[in-house]
Amino acid sequence: MLSERIGVEGIDWPSALTAHAHLLQTARDALWQRKSDPAEYLGWIDVPEDTESLRQVLRYREAHAWVEDLVVLGIGGSALGAQAVGAALGRGPVRLHFVDNVEPEPILVLLRTLDPRKTLVNVISKSGSTAETMAAFLVFRQWLEQNLADWKKHLVITTDPARGILRSYAQAEGLTTFAIPPSVGGRFSVTCPVGTLSLAFAGIDLEGLLAGARKANEQAKAALEHNLPAQTALIQHLFSQKGKNIVVFMPYSTRLRYLPDWFVQLHDESLGKMHNRAGQEVRTGTTAVRAIGTTDQHAQVQLFREGPRDKLINMVRFLNPSEDLKIPAVRGLEALDYLFGKSFFQLLDAEAKATAHALAKAQQPNYTLTLDKLDAYHLGWLLQHLMWQTAFLGELWNINAFDQPGVELGKEYTYALMGRKGWEALAQELKAEGVG
Amino acid sequence: MLSERIGVEGIDWPSALTAHAHLLQTARDALWQRKSDPAEYLGWIDVPEDTESLRQVLRYREAHAWVEDLVVLGIGGSALGAQAVGAALGRGPVRLHFVDNVEPEPILVLLRTLDPRKTLVNVISKSGSTAETMAAFLVFRQWLEQNLADWKKHLVITTDPARGILRSYAQAEGLTTFAIPPSVGGRFSVTCPVGTLSLAFAGIDLEGLLAGARKANEQAKAALEHNLPAQTALIQHLFSQKGKNIVVFMPYSTRLRYLPDWFVQLHDESLGKMHNRAGQEVRTGTTAVRAIGTTDQHAQVQLFREGPRDKLINMVRFLNPSEDLKIPAVRGLEALDYLFGKSFFQLLDAEAKATAHALAKAQQPNYTLTLDKLDAYHLGWLLQHLMWQTAFLGELWNINAFDQPGVELGKEYTYALMGRKGWEALAQELKAEGVG
Repeated sequence: MLSERIGVEGIDWPSALTAHAHLLQTARDALWQRKSDPAEYLGWIDVPEDTESLRQVLRYREAHAWVEDLVVLGIGGSALGAQAVGAALGRGPVRLHFVDNVEPEPILVLLRTLDPRKTLVNVISKSGSTAETMAAFLVFRQWLEQNLADWKKHLVITTDPARGILRSYAQAEGLTTFAIPPSVGGRFSVTCPVGTLSLAFAGIDLEGLLAGARKANEQAKAALEHNLPAQTALIQHLFSQKGKNIVVFMPYSTRLRYLPDWFVQLHDESLGKMHNRAGQEVRTGTTAVRAIGTTDQHAQVQLFREGPRDKLINMVRFLNPSEDLKIPAVRGLEALDYLFGKSFFQLLDAEAKATAHALAKAQQPNYTLTLDKLDAYHLGWLLQHLMWQTAFLGELWNINAFDQPGVELGKEYTYALMGRKGWEALAQELKAEGVG
Repeated sequence: MLSERIGVEGIDWPSALTAHAHLLQTARDALWQRKSDPAEYLGWIDVPEDTESLRQVLRYREAHAWVEDLVVLGIGGSALGAQAVGAALGRGPVRLHFVDNVEPEPILVLLRTLDPRKTLVNVISKSGSTAETMAAFLVFRQWLEQNLADWKKHLVITTDPARGILRSYAQAEGLTTFAIPPSVGGRFSVTCPVGTLSLAFAGIDLEGLLAGARKANEQAKAALEHNLPAQTALIQHLFSQKGKNIVVFMPYSTRLRYLPDWFVQLHDESLGKMHNRAGQEVRTGTTAVRAIGTTDQHAQVQLFREGPRDKLINMVRFLNPSEDLKIPAVRGLEALDYLFGKSFFQLLDAEAKATAHALAKAQQPNYTLTLDKLDAYHLGWLLQHLMWQTAFLGELWNINAFDQPGVELGKEYTYALMGRKGWEALAQELKAEGVG
């Protein structure tokens, strides 16, 4: 599935693979061996095998045929996966809305637009303490209660199976819940009910999505020459060692417009770490940049070709369209005759290849993941492949790819500024520094 | 309008400004002096003063009260500005659709959804030769013609006033047109009819937008201590000199979700250049990264805080909401009592300040543009301010910020792969290299 465009900038691919074989095999074996230890947060490997959880989700969806609007209250990993897959393959008729910020105006617009009788609210927070999500939950819960006698039927909670505020509230109030496996972190949760519940309402082929993810698992277990995530991780690793601190993720598809946002979180939050597992300060992390082809050929490619050679560009392209559209001939526009009779997919395909080649000519390293077509199976494969690539990179860099210690201080400052009890000292300190 | 958070990492702001005063004043004077030379592409400075062009746009909009869907066919600078402003402030009832890619499936979905009788198609290409836009034009023109006797009334063309395929076709067919001033490049065109025509249909206060842009012009003319774009350009310049090759643009607003995409094109395409004006190979350009607060606190801030110190972060924050929403208290959720009775805007504001402060603590340089509120005036100011900042950076780096030579080779390869006449030799060459 890799194009031939790897190996620019003097990387001899077969010998690089040989030279790193031991490192990659050790990483692969370590990940597979550790996967049943909940403290390692590798639960996402086995989630696509969990058909019972999928069956529960599908039963719930069938029992809620009255839903016309599904509002997901979640932020980061609780929203990005379903948003990406829903935009790519959603077929309706249920509309998905993601409340993933606390700016008041869009929330007010949404509340005024929705009919509570036909709305289901799915609040998603593993800890149950995410400030943004919980603020939205407080408002949407009240809105349902004020408008509906049976408001509890319009609420479904996705959270830790045992711990946290949302779990205890759901138990006290008798609300329907789905569990996030304790060993699955937010950015690795798209194939568990965090993603699948809303995607079931969007009409996604979830069996296909999970089958694709299982296929990626197979490849991640395979010997090195067939182990695609080990290979793409190695490419990413080698170019980061060559000083390229930027990784562009560029699918050639408008339907995949939110996939880079999901990838950005997966990559940046997993790999941007101050300390390695040995406790040394290392400050790892390449910065993922979002791009969409062909659109960004008219926005970012100028920089990618002529700017500093500080990037590795990962394109994603499909070999076949789901459906195609012919470009008609028009009298008076003969200057465009090279388009006449061709199809939109042919043009998209030519642009993707032309851009990869033009970047290579400028010695800007790039490689392309080519997928047969854009459907649930191949998208499920791609998501799980990228999770594996991230896990491999974490091993190569000897860091914990599954925590996010760097967001804690911001949360503490927020608590202080919001006047949360116990944070008075910090609030004083911030005030003294002119923040408030 | 700048927060105090500049000056981390040992930059002493007042003395830096003094040290660069001569350079900045020279840049400012050069830009203002060159602005009436069409070859300099500085027409965007005067566009906000052009009230006659705005009046034409508004008259056209009034005469087309029947429009329910407006389809914009355009890519890059022909789409990103209107998309950003429309998403931020659009009030309907006309729905805007942007066809800015050639993936067939979303275009087919759109064609099946639209009612041609209530649809207006605005094709935008300055040259009239953009492959993606013209392919879409050929299809939408045919769709209108096949469905409507008066199809020409449903088509409006925005292009060069004299040159190009679209201009000659419009003349031959008697189609309505709006002109893109020859001295205005795509990524600087949001305040001319490229942006204003669709924004008029979206109900945007265009007088306010242009008034804000004129305010930014005033500041760009002012002495250094009041010249905000000269100052922000200097910050960007100083940190790029310190090796920070990434510039994060992070508004705290979901309504501004497309503004970073507009900024990415403006910044990357203008400043990513292989050669300077003296013809030397320089490979300039920092890479702009899109982020939205608070959303990306749960996606990218882990990397921004703990990862390599290779970034400058530019946040944008509003001092006042247009409308606010209170967070209610709920029995059984007392663990969240720090949110009870507070407002969403208070939370958004606290998160923005907390993040700026947490980044500064980690010695990750950041500064905040603070705007009174999100309305047409302040958004017009922000757009024009960022255009000025870009122009100043072009001067500081002695590059042409207004061309894009790096996208030509990709276009040539596309022509060859699409079989355009005259490109046979290149097609053979690509085939020999395994591309096809």
